Amino acid sequence: MQEDIFERRESIVRSYCRNFDTVFVSAKGSEMTDANGKTYIDFLAGCSTLNYGHNDPDMKKALIEHIERDGIAHGLDMYTDAKAEWLKAFEDNILEPRGMGDYKIMMTGPTGTNAVEAAVKLARKVTGRSNVIAFTNGFHGMTLGALALTGNAGKRAGAGAGCNGICGTTHLPYAGAFGDDVDTLDQIEMMIDNSSSGVDAPAAFIFEPIQGEGGLNAASAKWMKGIADLAKKTGALLIVDDIQSGCGRSGDYFGFENAGIKPDIITQAKSLSGMGLPFACVLLKKEHDIWKPAEHNGTFRGNNHAFITAKVTLDKFWKDDAFMKDVRKKADILEAGLQRIADLIPGARLKGRGMMKGVDVTSGDIASDMCSRAFEKGLIIETSGADDEVVKVLAALTIPEDQLQKGLDILFEAAQETVESHKIAAE
Amino acid sequence: MQEDIFERRESIVRSYCRNFDTVFVSAKGSEMTDANGKTYIDFLAGCSTLNYGHNDPDMKKALIEHIERDGIAHGLDMYTDAKAEWLKAFEDNILEPRGMGDYKIMMTGPTGTNAVEAAVKLARKVTGRSNVIAFTNGFHGMTLGALALTGNAGKRAGAGAGCNGICGTTHLPYAGAFGDDVDTLDQIEMMIDNSSSGVDAPAAFIFEPIQGEGGLNAASAKWMKGIADLAKKTGALLIVDDIQSGCGRSGDYFGFENAGIKPDIITQAKSLSGMGLPFACVLLKKEHDIWKPAEHNGTFRGNNHAFITAKVTLDKFWKDDAFMKDVRKKADILEAGLQRIADLIPGARLKGRGMMKGVDVTSGDIASDMCSRAFEKGLIIETSGADDEVVKVLAALTIPEDQLQKGLDILFEAAQETVESHKIAAE
Amino acid sequence: MQEDIFERRESIVRSYCRNFDTVFVSAKGSEMTDANGKTYIDFLAGCSTLNYGHNDPDMKKALIEHIERDGIAHGLDMYTDAKAEWLKAFEDNILEPRGMGDYKIMMTGPTGTNAVEAAVKLARKVTGRSNVIAFTNGFHGMTLGALALTGNAGKRAGAGAGCNGICGTTHLPYAGAFGDDVDTLDQIEMMIDNSSSGVDAPAAFIFEPIQGEGGLNAASAKWMKGIADLAKKTGALLIVDDIQSGCGRSGDYFGFENAGIKPDIITQAKSLSGMGLPFACVLLKKEHDIWKPAEHNGTFRGNNHAFITAKVTLDKFWKDDAFMKDVRKKADILEAGLQRIADLIPGARLKGRGMMKGVDVTSGDIASDMCSRAFEKGLIIETSGADDEVVKVLAALTIPEDQLQKGLDILFEAAQETVESHKIAAE
Amino acid sequence: MQEDIFERRESIVRSYCRNFDTVFVSAKGSEMTDANGKTYIDFLAGCSTLNYGHNDPDMKKALIEHIERDGIAHGLDMYTDAKAEWLKAFEDNILEPRGMGDYKIMMTGPTGTNAVEAAVKLARKVTGRSNVIAFTNGFHGMTLGALALTGNAGKRAGAGAGCNGICGTTHLPYAGAFGDDVDTLDQIEMMIDNSSSGVDAPAAFIFEPIQGEGGLNAASAKWMKGIADLAKKTGALLIVDDIQSGCGRSGDYFGFENAGIKPDIITQAKSLSGMGLPFACVLLKKEHDIWKPAEHNGTFRGNNHAFITAKVTLDKFWKDDAFMKDVRKKADILEAGLQRIADLIPGARLKGRGMMKGVDVTSGDIASDMCSRAFEKGLIIETSGADDEVVKVLAALTIPEDQLQKGLDILFEAAQETVESHKIAAE
Repeated sequence: MQEDIFERRESIVRSYCRNFDTVFVSAKGSEMTDANGKTYIDFLAGCSTLNYGHNDPDMKKALIEHIERDGIAHGLDMYTDAKAEWLKAFEDNILEPRGMGDYKIMMTGPTGTNAVEAAVKLARKVTGRSNVIAFTNGFHGMTLGALALTGNAGKRAGAGAGCNGICGTTHLPYAGAFGDDVDTLDQIEMMIDNSSSGVDAPAAFIFEPIQGEGGLNAASAKWMKGIADLAKKTGALLIVDDIQSGCGRSGDYFGFENAGIKPDIITQAKSLSGMGLPFACVLLKKEHDIWKPAEHNGTFRGNNHAFITAKVTLDKFWKDDAFMKDVRKKADILEAGLQRIADLIPGARLKGRGMMKGVDVTSGDIASDMCSRAFEKGLIIETSGADDEVVKVLAALTIPEDQLQKGLDILFEAAQETVESHKIAAE
Repeated sequence: MQEDIFERRESIVRSYCRNFDTVFVSAKGSEMTDANGKTYIDFLAGCSTLNYGHNDPDMKKALIEHIERDGIAHGLDMYTDAKAEWLKAFEDNILEPRGMGDYKIMMTGPTGTNAVEAAVKLARKVTGRSNVIAFTNGFHGMTLGALALTGNAGKRAGAGAGCNGICGTTHLPYAGAFGDDVDTLDQIEMMIDNSSSGVDAPAAFIFEPIQGEGGLNAASAKWMKGIADLAKKTGALLIVDDIQSGCGRSGDYFGFENAGIKPDIITQAKSLSGMGLPFACVLLKKEHDIWKPAEHNGTFRGNNHAFITAKVTLDKFWKDDAFMKDVRKKADILEAGLQRIADLIPGARLKGRGMMKGVDVTSGDIASDMCSRAFEKGLIIETSGADDEVVKVLAALTIPEDQLQKGLDILFEAAQETVESHKIAAE
Repeated sequence: MQEDIFERRESIVRSYCRNFDTVFVSAKGSEMTDANGKTYIDFLAGCSTLNYGHNDPDMKKALIEHIERDGIAHGLDMYTDAKAEWLKAFEDNILEPRGMGDYKIMMTGPTGTNAVEAAVKLARKVTGRSNVIAFTNGFHGMTLGALALTGNAGKRAGAGAGCNGICGTTHLPYAGAFGDDVDTLDQIEMMIDNSSSGVDAPAAFIFEPIQGEGGLNAASAKWMKGIADLAKKTGALLIVDDIQSGCGRSGDYFGFENAGIKPDIITQAKSLSGMGLPFACVLLKKEHDIWKPAEHNGTFRGNNHAFITAKVTLDKFWKDDAFMKDVRKKADILEAGLQRIADLIPGARLKGRGMMKGVDVTSGDIASDMCSRAFEKGLIIETSGADDEVVKVLAALTIPEDQLQKGLDILFEAAQETVESHKIAAE
Repeated sequence: MQEDIFERRESIVRSYCRNFDTVFVSAKGSEMTDANGKTYIDFLAGCSTLNYGHNDPDMKKALIEHIERDGIAHGLDMYTDAKAEWLKAFEDNILEPRGMGDYKIMMTGPTGTNAVEAAVKLARKVTGRSNVIAFTNGFHGMTLGALALTGNAGKRAGAGAGCNGICGTTHLPYAGAFGDDVDTLDQIEMMIDNSSSGVDAPAAFIFEPIQGEGGLNAASAKWMKGIADLAKKTGALLIVDDIQSGCGRSGDYFGFENAGIKPDIITQAKSLSGMGLPFACVLLKKEHDIWKPAEHNGTFRGNNHAFITAKVTLDKFWKDDAFMKDVRKKADILEAGLQRIADLIPGARLKGRGMMKGVDVTSGDIASDMCSRAFEKGLIIETSGADDEVVKVLAALTIPEDQLQKGLDILFEAAQETVESHKIAAE
């Protein structure tokens, strides 16, 4: 009965609910429960928004206390105690230990796309240039400035007639875009160095360390370092969009730490609040903090409820390296489980890095079939990639090992059935 | 001490905190309290985000219960009980009573700018046209598509070099832009009818019923109706951006109800959640619901905590017309109070409509001085307008009459002092 | 037989040949002769390209001599004697007598649109701004940069999908666009002064002193002066597009001389060569000559054959004011003749200035009918205006008075027949 | 003395005259003579505009006869005998013999950039798409639409602030752009096939068979065929910009004939008139001739003087294959002469195809030095390439063999001196 209301009132643009066609009523850790009392293991985790799982008890407690004491829920960008405490904890636990004391934090509207828009605007202001270089299969958001950077043709088509502001952008091949034999970094450098290439001097390069929507493509440390060097050489800013790959997902807090780079601008969102509350920000080197007051604003920039829960994440998980050690261990379990699945399917191969891994099962049909079967068996899991050909695991980083293994087992079963059904099999 | 962290870590783009230079720790109804225990009457209300005041006890209660029972906090756009209940309550209390049963609801990212971007993208998709007609002094958001529609030069400058995608937009004069003697509607129609005007056939017209940031300019019912008719005549969609003027602010639920129009698309945000939680959506006529699944998406679209509190607003305030009757009564009190202030200042005049009113005090200096003095006296109030020349009252609609009167009295004192200090006085 | 080849091989984009459906073989002064030996009086004059008539004997003589002695026909932008002599004659006869010694000349590709593109590029370079303000009913050319400035929807539609680069332009109402009662200059100033109007700080204003394609709208001297002042005030460059109104057409050499202004940039083309040979240039104040060598180039910039004939125009017509006195006398004859026609048609009114005048006959149907009937009677004449509602006379400035009168008589007859056929008549 | 006038009056944007700093007064065949009576061999030929040499006696004769008999000089796009005869001759001698009977001819403004703009507008109209794919090092013109397709950063900078309409374009690597080992065709296909590459579905591909300004890069027949196939596969139009490589320059009439392709649209200009008179047109397949009358127009479209001389080229050179056989023979002489020069310079290599060849002498300094020394010795020759590193020979196709050899000998001497002066030498 309840579902009638969705069909009747919610725009047909809705998406995830189509694959997970039930009504969820509660969630805890890595489990979600629907209105029929059925429980699912969550290998989607809000697309990496719930790195710390659903309804973490410490976050719940802190948030409820805040609400009960009439703590500020909404205060535009006014100073609040909640904001101060989060800023201090972020400084102590994230910035300082990583030698990033020269970064400032810009509160943007609480969505990833808003952070990306702010980052790109700032890069253009700082450099006085227009062109932003993004990469094939990149995903950066749905508002026009971010959509211009997004590769996906279907998403771009959503902007309607003509180019509509989708200009000032150049898409170049991401790491591995032409296969392992081609060093796209070399080619990118040739395009930039050639003053007649038609690629205008860039305001910025923007990339994701691991492309989530684009098919779990992971750039090598060498490629990331190369782009950082190229940005410096050409007077462009380096923007790392760490929205999906950040907050521990890669095995480090930031997805680019293994490359030893210090981006000019970093976007953060998704798991930043820890509890799934809307929250995003931009980290920028102090030298680039040339905004005028209110030059980029937004009603919901900063979100005080999110400051409360975000601070809990910092105190609970980022005081030392215990959490990351644990995550890397789980990443190995994940890899083993996925390899077992890949071995079932001719042509399949592993994608991704850290706890952001998946299997390219060679076609969107196979991937979709696998995910549907998994859902019936109690596992929430999604696909990604240009043709939705990658089965993607984005389990919470806090998932207990046995639950992770159980989810992988379900996925293996689903893969077996799919292989049978499609009459494909590795020899 | 706490404020050091803001200076050290927060980007200089921050704004409201500069005028209200204290650290807030709690808020209830129409009062905010800072770290020193000082209490302020809030005539800003999160720029119309807190139409129902801070931390409404019923909303608090519902939200805490939801959190305690591990209700879904974040579920992408999956079906949840919280979403279903809000949709049903919105249908019953808002859409059906207004004969708007043919509207669907699109969950966008939880910020106003995201709703505007979605609205504009849809209008371009539906019409296959590119040009969107916005109006002088309009404010629609900070992401590139919305910024293209925003009039403010300072905000536009934030986008950096060149036009950067700020194309596909035409700005025409809003109601009253050339003074009371000029009927801009007539001129707009001449521009549109003239096939050699250089104004391309529009995909949409977008306007705010009352311009909040633009200086509390209120379009007449006749003007709104005229634009609606013109949109229809030219095959364009009518988008009403009701983000700041909606949710009862104008004296009706929607800011355009007095014009008797049915816009093709309506944007909602700010007070939609009731408690200041990030939440936005787009209402669209069913005939325009031509999206493909996921064509416009977003991690935080729909916000389950906000569904919970938003539902409380509907049950508590919108079951009958008692609330609006009360609001209209307070609007009269507000008008009387503001007129008293306007009478102090030569050339001053009242602006706005409903509970969205202010005084154009003829210069930004005077307005700024008044607001500073008011803040010292315990009143939070801000300016708006192209030159920040309008002192703007956006008190909560739920503010008790005595508190409203007390705030107006403080503002009157501040105005008196300002008049003395600037050596200006009405004869 | 010959016409088959046009139908078979020439694109359907062709236009004038459709209304004047015969094959022309020779022309002299203000007469054209077709393959059947029929002679026509030419009131079109190549849309103001043949201000000095067809095949002026002195120009012919000079050109033939040049060709016979193997004078340079094409030399890119190399120095030639022909170029030097034209430059000197232009300096002596046009620039110096008008106190315009501080202008330089930029040779662009030999078409009007190329001159406009160069002008706009330069204004953007000089100011570092993007937005160019053009006016309703303006016509500036068919290449993308110029088309962006052109008002006509049909022409703009030629650019195909979306905005395709038609950005960075704002169209404001030309003088008289809202009727005689509205001072558009005032409104333009209000739009520019309002920092929240959404009209970005302009790189340039560009207008035609008399709009040829737009319906023979003539800006008053006051309006032109006002725009010049506004450009100065806002730090924008003033570009006057004098392509159709220049070279004596208005009653002065430049169409803006009566306003006493000195534009930053002036475009010239059409009658510049005198004999109808492709030739265009840009005049610019020395202070704006900040190009880098070859930054704007073009194979046919400068046209040596045109230099030869253009020099003849300067020696023959511009050594003193005798020519302009004669032109102004003919302009009076033209006005009287057109008034007689306007009196025949209810609602008709005179348009234009100098020898660039016509009658708005209230509808495109009537105008088209009149022109067709005139052509049958041996008069070549065309319409203009957003709805082709203006019968436009662009006779050569050198047309003998009796031929001018004869043409007007034919047009009067055609008007009479049209009035009868359409059953319309002034009381 | 004469040169003062250039310095005083001509914009500093002028270019060729800087390298050839003398005043030319006459020219015949492949020789130009200056005011001092000094004679130069012309290896520039108006950048391929004078494929048939200067002042061909038959063209002179026909043009003088036309002028003497008061033939139409300018008639907008009205039908004239001169136009009919050129069309017929073009049909008989160019289109029909090449199986191109299904092409129509669009008269554009008489410059290459105008033809390119028309071509691109048409492709967008036909496909309803916006994106045009151009290639690195391509040169297509200086007006905004064409400039968007041009690779050269210096030229692009001429457009001033921001992107200014330079949108709707993607630049991909031309044949050989990443060296001989990389098949750019493969990579281009991967970019186009990947629906998440960010490269929008193209309206058109546009390339030059041999890049003149870009450094005499010649695409292989296989590459041209591959792009043609890719255009067909993706529903895009293929535009070949044959402005510099056409009219026999490549060894065939069209520069793409060796690839066996039939482009949807072909641009022609430069040598089209034969005598250096401004003239350009677009050839388009009949199925794409969907313009509305006058949708793209232009005062000087078609140029009757040019029709006269252009017809002479067809009668004199294109009735059989004798001319092309002769050209190919000279191309061999050219190649041998250039190889002798390349052998002098370490790292030098031959570029180009047919009579459009040159030597990449490894640096702009060396190339510039060589050309200066050659000019002193009586040879007019220019450089090209992103860094002006290619010494480019564009001799008239009609140059006598002994004159060609003499020019090559001068160039060899200049090269020897340059090698000595720069202390470089091949071992």
